[in-house]
Amino acid sequence: MKTPSSLEELIAALRCLPGVGPKSAQRMAYHLLQRDKQGALRLSYSLTNAVQGIRHCAKCNNFSEEEICVLCSSGKRDESLLCVVEMPADLLMMEQTQSYRGMYFVLMGRLSPLDGIGARELPLDRLVRRAQELPCEVILATNFTVEGEATAHYTATLLRAQGIRVSRIARGLPVGGELEHVDSGTLAQAILERREVMG
Amino acid sequence: MKTPSSLEELIAALRCLPGVGPKSAQRMAYHLLQRDKQGALRLSYSLTNAVQGIRHCAKCNNFSEEEICVLCSSGKRDESLLCVVEMPADLLMMEQTQSYRGMYFVLMGRLSPLDGIGARELPLDRLVRRAQELPCEVILATNFTVEGEATAHYTATLLRAQGIRVSRIARGLPVGGELEHVDSGTLAQAILERREVMG
Repeated sequence: MKTPSSLEELIAALRCLPGVGPKSAQRMAYHLLQRDKQGALRLSYSLTNAVQGIRHCAKCNNFSEEEICVLCSSGKRDESLLCVVEMPADLLMMEQTQSYRGMYFVLMGRLSPLDGIGARELPLDRLVRRAQELPCEVILATNFTVEGEATAHYTATLLRAQGIRVSRIARGLPVGGELEHVDSGTLAQAILERREVMG
Repeated sequence: MKTPSSLEELIAALRCLPGVGPKSAQRMAYHLLQRDKQGALRLSYSLTNAVQGIRHCAKCNNFSEEEICVLCSSGKRDESLLCVVEMPADLLMMEQTQSYRGMYFVLMGRLSPLDGIGARELPLDRLVRRAQELPCEVILATNFTVEGEATAHYTATLLRAQGIRVSRIARGLPVGGELEHVDSGTLAQAILERREVMG
């Protein structure tokens, strides 16, 4: 018994999606062909369209349809601050806070030797040039994971060697957080990084 | 801050895949654009290709590129048996056992009122016609889930009303199964459906 070849090919192609194994790929293909052919065609079109239309902003490295993205070309941002994030989703989170009005640089990844991503795979030289060109204080807002911390440490060393001022976003208890329910590592950091209460 | 529209559209389109929510869709889109543009283009092509090339076999209702699928037109199968399964993946599992050489009918679903799939949404009238046309014994091999059992029950009633012989694949302990580790429902069924040991 053979699966039709175009169905087999679709199942194989779906495996390019992160987190999709053989069983999920099969289930997705069946679902699309059985219940959502319109969705499948729309997805097909969107994929080609995005691959052809999306590039990286020459300044912040975020995904963009233009040479310079909307944010970098707005002219209304504070150019004395450059916030470094791992992914575009992190940039969106920063923007949602509405408390940061500076520029950004998106690494599109993090140092992760296990996934074959070393310092060469990240656009760190472009980050240094961008920081020198502004010039600015660089705020490192990579995640507080092992990889994110390593990335921040490595990036800070690089930038400071060029005389660039570098800071890291604060660790501590979340707003509304209770000591009883926070993990001890976070609490230890919150104690270490305590701030004097002004009168 | 705006996400480029073709990227936003890709993220929305990825939501048509079953089990993919907004966060996964975002992660998939970033991954494809950042690390696997070739894979994205291949997936785009495969989707269009499969949607245009795949239809349902007129006899067994399985996915097929031809009017009648390879299995139904082989001429080497036992036409006195018609096995009813929910999905093409189930048919593949049946074939892997190499102990069944009859025909198939693929429902492409199961009775599932919560998902809006009632008896009308399943090709049960085509199944009845096919069973009468052969004629044959129908083996119900839907899953032993609540939905699969309901589907088997409903289908059996329909078929028997037409004087068609119907059977259900056996429940019991799996091969290599230990009483200590099997769930009590399965064990209870295995006792109920016990078979006499022949001398």
